[in-house]
Amino acid sequence: MTPTAGPRPGGRSARIQQAVRASARALLEWHERADITVPMIATDAGVTPSTIYRRWGDINEVFADVSIEQLRPDAPPRETGSLRGDLTAWSQEYLEEMSTSVGRAALRDVLMSDDQALAPDGTKKFKCAFFCRTQIDVILARWPEASAVDGDSVVDHVVAPIVYRILFDLEPLSLLRVSELVDQVLAPKVSV
Amino acid sequence: MTPTAGPRPGGRSARIQQAVRASARALLEWHERADITVPMIATDAGVTPSTIYRRWGDINEVFADVSIEQLRPDAPPRETGSLRGDLTAWSQEYLEEMSTSVGRAALRDVLMSDDQALAPDGTKKFKCAFFCRTQIDVILARWPEASAVDGDSVVDHVVAPIVYRILFDLEPLSLLRVSELVDQVLAPKVSV
Repeated sequence: MTPTAGPRPGGRSARIQQAVRASARALLEWHERADITVPMIATDAGVTPSTIYRRWGDINEVFADVSIEQLRPDAPPRETGSLRGDLTAWSQEYLEEMSTSVGRAALRDVLMSDDQALAPDGTKKFKCAFFCRTQIDVILARWPEASAVDGDSVVDHVVAPIVYRILFDLEPLSLLRVSELVDQVLAPKVSV
Repeated sequence: MTPTAGPRPGGRSARIQQAVRASARALLEWHERADITVPMIATDAGVTPSTIYRRWGDINEVFADVSIEQLRPDAPPRETGSLRGDLTAWSQEYLEEMSTSVGRAALRDVLMSDDQALAPDGTKKFKCAFFCRTQIDVILARWPEASAVDGDSVVDHVVAPIVYRILFDLEPLSLLRVSELVDQVLAPKVSV
């Protein structure tokens, strides 16, 4: 999912990584995924195909690398004035983003990657799961009354059903249902 | 995931399908998945590669087809003498099966398949999600007190966290935690 040896920021490695990602993204706008090859990306990015094979392994890893960047949150969770409001807003926005064709494809790309991505905390969980958990933990840390709320419960009862239904093409959860799931996670722990 | 035109049972189509599945399974016992090609399967199964390309599309679809057979339940859910017992036993066995390397690979194969598998009821949900739902519905139909229990809730609060954690390499749920999740789904609806 990421090159084996981490690139130095701004170094040649990092420039290659950025160029390859940008080319993959650009090609995806005009071609079916199945029609894109490593040599096509290499030509567009101005690198050799063997550079890509050496650093990513195969084309699925290139797509996964692009996708993980799309799944990375670009801002802390929105502040709404309450614990319940923050969790509901984040969950509903997560549902909306992941339900798009881009979001679905990104989730599947990440799962298609064999890479056991090391999360920033050194654990082996997938980075996109780590991204979710980090956003949830930021919200829980904002509110003293959240001390009784277990981040794992939010993952199991809110994130998991959102993602499971998207991946397996079940009826997606409604925004109302997402807010009910948040209420249920908070209900026994927090009086609101 | 399945050939575009459904094979007549027992006909030539069905025999080809069985032979290709059997060869793919056999090759998987001796080779890394990435080393197996359509021509290898074709040779082993005694068909032409073009037969496989025409009927399955690509190698990922062949693997998905094999995996969906592994995910298909081979018996109705075990009877334990109570609604809670039946749901707990099924959920714990599902966790155990899906947590194996075979189960994980099968789930990922199915997701890697582009095929929008038509479930037996004509909807587009993935067959493995349909299998789960069917087993849950069989259990709920056994017990009059389950009339207040929504099958969707069991999917969202029991199946989804089991699968999400497996797919994203989070700490798997414990058997105890699975039984707690079942208790929580039943708690507001069923006095036990």
